[in-house]
Amino acid sequence: MNEVKALFFDVFGTLVDWRMGIARESEKVLSPLGYKLDWFAFADAWRSEYQPGMEEVRAGRIPFSRLDILHRRNLSRILPRFDIKADEKTLTELNLAWHRIDAWPDVAPGLARLKRKFWLAPVSNGNISMMVALARRNNFPWDAILGAEIAGDYKPKPRVYLASCEAFSLQPSECMMVAAHSYDLSAAAAQGLRTAHVARPDEAGPGKGERAPSIEVDVAGGSFEEIAAKLGV
Amino acid sequence: MNEVKALFFDVFGTLVDWRMGIARESEKVLSPLGYKLDWFAFADAWRSEYQPGMEEVRAGRIPFSRLDILHRRNLSRILPRFDIKADEKTLTELNLAWHRIDAWPDVAPGLARLKRKFWLAPVSNGNISMMVALARRNNFPWDAILGAEIAGDYKPKPRVYLASCEAFSLQPSECMMVAAHSYDLSAAAAQGLRTAHVARPDEAGPGKGERAPSIEVDVAGGSFEEIAAKLGV
Repeated sequence: MNEVKALFFDVFGTLVDWRMGIARESEKVLSPLGYKLDWFAFADAWRSEYQPGMEEVRAGRIPFSRLDILHRRNLSRILPRFDIKADEKTLTELNLAWHRIDAWPDVAPGLARLKRKFWLAPVSNGNISMMVALARRNNFPWDAILGAEIAGDYKPKPRVYLASCEAFSLQPSECMMVAAHSYDLSAAAAQGLRTAHVARPDEAGPGKGERAPSIEVDVAGGSFEEIAAKLGV
Repeated sequence: MNEVKALFFDVFGTLVDWRMGIARESEKVLSPLGYKLDWFAFADAWRSEYQPGMEEVRAGRIPFSRLDILHRRNLSRILPRFDIKADEKTLTELNLAWHRIDAWPDVAPGLARLKRKFWLAPVSNGNISMMVALARRNNFPWDAILGAEIAGDYKPKPRVYLASCEAFSLQPSECMMVAAHSYDLSAAAAQGLRTAHVARPDEAGPGKGERAPSIEVDVAGGSFEEIAAKLGV
């Protein structure tokens, strides 16, 4: 554990409250056009297309496309379900809702503290421009943006974790993946990375997130302050 | 020009004084072993292998290797000329001299100022871990690390500039390359990027840097403060 030099972060759910953000931003774009929806249901529907969309890439059925492109495709898929018709400009704006999400309140102070000791990077399925927009909004002090776009594939494929270690010129055992999702940590551990679980019990709706990891991890906590303390920072 | 949203920076020569840094760090590693060299001549010799080393990659004769690897190979090439024999551990340490270079004094305040208006990234031939080390040492407030390693090729190949624009989801006309070298700006302009030249007249030794651009550029100045003022920040 003393060997760890870099921390890699999952972003959606782990750092940012995507459900609240997407509900709020969707309402902001669509309600002026007269739409009145259950905005949380809309966010959930959009998010539910997330894994199937990436699976097309992971399975090699379509070439790698950045998450903004997949989100736009997924949006087209759910619009009929909510009876939404909007022009391209509106939909482009709506699609950027994923760039305008707020972090959980413990994240910015926790990252500032962790930065004193570790190199920090998001290792997310989100694309680089999305990561930059979220970092600027929320004061994430990244050393670099790693993850899916530099790997050309999506988590939990091994390549994403390994490409991120290589980008920092580190061995997997010198890198720790931090996430609120056990499947992500499990995939990282299989490549030799260390793991930290942060509980986000309300991530996908009240009580629908992981209260604790379902696998063995190196560190677990309820906030980034707690993770930082356990990592000796 | 009002369209510009991101600034891309060349690093060696433009942001950091590689000649002074490599001379100092080489002395630090080698003089305890009894070597007394003209350390500037050593830095110049090492740097002179830089373009030929990358040309192997650009021409497709060898697959892409990150600059740390090329630097190490170039180091082996010059050691006999200076009659240096050292163990692998020492040479690895010496090779990391390129991670421990100081910036010109106008850079950190200039970048902090530019960051208010633009997304900032290095678009260097240096690898990601090298860019992170230099950023931490010199307080470069990058939004992301772009450049050769994410493009899989070396400047001035078009792919490096274009991959960097794509990573920020921007058109080339929305990106401005900032460099002390006209060949770099010329290659960026050929791909549709905007250009800014900063003069570093002593970059490669007293009077051996470019005092002014040898091509037409959008902005030119003698410091980052001057560039920032001309970009309206």
